[in-house]
Amino acid sequence: MSDHVNVGILGKGTVGGAFRRLLNERAEMVEEVSGRRPRVSGVLSSNRGSFDRILSRSDIVVELIGGIDPARGYVTEALRQGRHVVTANKQLVAQHGDELVAAAREGGAQLRFEAAVAGAIPVIRVVQESLGAIPIEKVFGIVNGTTNYILTEMARGGLSYEEALGQAQVLGYAEADPTEDVNGADAAAKMTILARLAFGAPVQLRDVPFEGIERIKPDDLAYAKELGLSLKLLGVAERVGDGQISVRVFPCFLYPGHPLAPISGPFNAVMVEAPAIDEITMSGPGAGGLETAAAVLGDVVSVISGGSPLFEENAKLRIAKDVEMAFYLHLEVDDQPGVLAQIAEVLGDNGVSVRSVVQRGRGGEAQLIMVMHPVSEKAFAAAMKKLAKLRFLRSSPRSIRVIEEEWS
Amino acid sequence: MSDHVNVGILGKGTVGGAFRRLLNERAEMVEEVSGRRPRVSGVLSSNRGSFDRILSRSDIVVELIGGIDPARGYVTEALRQGRHVVTANKQLVAQHGDELVAAAREGGAQLRFEAAVAGAIPVIRVVQESLGAIPIEKVFGIVNGTTNYILTEMARGGLSYEEALGQAQVLGYAEADPTEDVNGADAAAKMTILARLAFGAPVQLRDVPFEGIERIKPDDLAYAKELGLSLKLLGVAERVGDGQISVRVFPCFLYPGHPLAPISGPFNAVMVEAPAIDEITMSGPGAGGLETAAAVLGDVVSVISGGSPLFEENAKLRIAKDVEMAFYLHLEVDDQPGVLAQIAEVLGDNGVSVRSVVQRGRGGEAQLIMVMHPVSEKAFAAAMKKLAKLRFLRSSPRSIRVIEEEWS
Repeated sequence: MSDHVNVGILGKGTVGGAFRRLLNERAEMVEEVSGRRPRVSGVLSSNRGSFDRILSRSDIVVELIGGIDPARGYVTEALRQGRHVVTANKQLVAQHGDELVAAAREGGAQLRFEAAVAGAIPVIRVVQESLGAIPIEKVFGIVNGTTNYILTEMARGGLSYEEALGQAQVLGYAEADPTEDVNGADAAAKMTILARLAFGAPVQLRDVPFEGIERIKPDDLAYAKELGLSLKLLGVAERVGDGQISVRVFPCFLYPGHPLAPISGPFNAVMVEAPAIDEITMSGPGAGGLETAAAVLGDVVSVISGGSPLFEENAKLRIAKDVEMAFYLHLEVDDQPGVLAQIAEVLGDNGVSVRSVVQRGRGGEAQLIMVMHPVSEKAFAAAMKKLAKLRFLRSSPRSIRVIEEEWS
Repeated sequence: MSDHVNVGILGKGTVGGAFRRLLNERAEMVEEVSGRRPRVSGVLSSNRGSFDRILSRSDIVVELIGGIDPARGYVTEALRQGRHVVTANKQLVAQHGDELVAAAREGGAQLRFEAAVAGAIPVIRVVQESLGAIPIEKVFGIVNGTTNYILTEMARGGLSYEEALGQAQVLGYAEADPTEDVNGADAAAKMTILARLAFGAPVQLRDVPFEGIERIKPDDLAYAKELGLSLKLLGVAERVGDGQISVRVFPCFLYPGHPLAPISGPFNAVMVEAPAIDEITMSGPGAGGLETAAAVLGDVVSVISGGSPLFEENAKLRIAKDVEMAFYLHLEVDDQPGVLAQIAEVLGDNGVSVRSVVQRGRGGEAQLIMVMHPVSEKAFAAAMKKLAKLRFLRSSPRSIRVIEEEWS
């Protein structure tokens, strides 16, 4: 490389544009801190520019196209040819991380992807570098700003899911097609990446079960408000003993005082637990164009200043088939004698133990709101299946997980 | 270097011991992630070992002695001779940072000191690397766990300052001589380091005015509780316009909803504000032996995997001579006609504008609790000096700063 570092940019969308502006604006400061000045060696858009030409002129390739193809081929090729790659592409890293890391090793190049998870919060760097040699127990948090905005507005203003989603779209916090955000798939991709880095385990996206927030009702949030609980869409990656890990995405009630409870609006927050450090919590805005561009620039600076990011490998860890959680259960029932007894019997038969029951309303409006003690998720799912068949239910049973730990 | 990386440890106290154990325990994992296995090449204690001998055998020197001498000589010498240095020594970095960075440049060596600030929270890495090329507006937070523990207990249990300090000492959160923690000097050293990294400005420890918590009374916390405010010892480093920065440490009331308000017990939390990222907040336990050792290990891993930390330099920034803050003012007064008028006159003459006044008690127990609009700190100090001379005051006036911003 010369005194200049040539940066090829793939992608000319919102993030691509924001990054290009930021790089030009901050080129002098990058030179001051790293000793070399970055300059844009080419920009590839869907209808302009040649990848091969940009590749031949670049020391670093910044991939901001998104999606799997053609990004996958470009990134793999660049890494194999020894070009360092910085990408914000969570689906690519989540689905083809192995292939990318192998290509980086082959080419002796760096691969960095801070911007793929949690916007401006440097969670990748912390998990991969600060805690690179510390055994992490658990990484979890709010990794999707769209859903956190929607849940915040539903809780604050009593909006329906549809109203809150519409509002998020107007404000630019949700895309025209919000499917991947609201169904939890986006969070699942991010948790796949975090789990791989935290545990070095070959977690695949298909190993990560996810639930979204589409079925959350204002009822559930009213219940939460009454008890001081917050409802969040959580991604959780944790060791669950016996060489097993569990990685999941689900909506969940949090008790007051939980560090994630006050995270509101389009913000993200991630907690990391490890015996040596107790726990650390990081929060900040989710991935807007500028935040993503800033995270990409941080990676570019790290690449220029040398030093490989670290990839641990621990193929021995297995994905747990089942874990224990506490549940809230919402049932709309006909208000008649014996209803609670039958429900309790179904739960008991499946090993589900009830912690509290409250009946709301009477007659055709009766609702049972129940909270269970922690129980195997499989056992609870079996109970839910049986409950759904009870004839006195006026609608399908709804359940939401609950994190019970009290925080001081 | 061979396939082994030789790590010399200076210091055999709590942190030195914890680091040595952690390094041995995690040597295999460090090798997995970085390709090379660290081994202890020597340990220097006050009465055993030779620095020169350890230096000649080490690739990395880890300084955990603390204090200025002899740590300063050892670290400077090691860096000049091209040995990478990792240190947890905040006083050394705060007071002699320039000299150390110059020695590192001379020797072509790395200098890392994550453990010097905020325990296990990787705030140095985030400010220096993730945000290395982003202009930071403000870094602030709770950077001393001892004082946060004391303030938390005073607020929670109505303890006096002395009682809470005693309790902190019993639990190991405060040292036998707590002076540097409680008077704000420890926080000032940490803020000096953060300010240098955030702004690249040549901030010296003597440029950082600090106040501690020794004079906080249960009264003040009772007031805070009533209004839902939290009292924290804050370190603040910020740009204040016109090429100026301000770095200070002071006790301060925070409004509810402020991200730092819920940080309780011996925890630390740091917020970073920059236009490109809005704000990020990081929190975690303060510096216990194990947290410090973990932070040191993270730095050792970074050194092994290459990549220099970045030091920006911006000598043009000047330290502001004055800044604006809001204040709470507590006056014990004789309850007689004309008292408030005289106080208001003194304040008004000094340009201090009153936002609210409440009188508590009557007769010989009367207290005035006032909150001011934001005002120049110098003007307020001048007003305080005049107020102290009023004959109807039963004790010296007490003031505490207030951060007014509302957070949602």
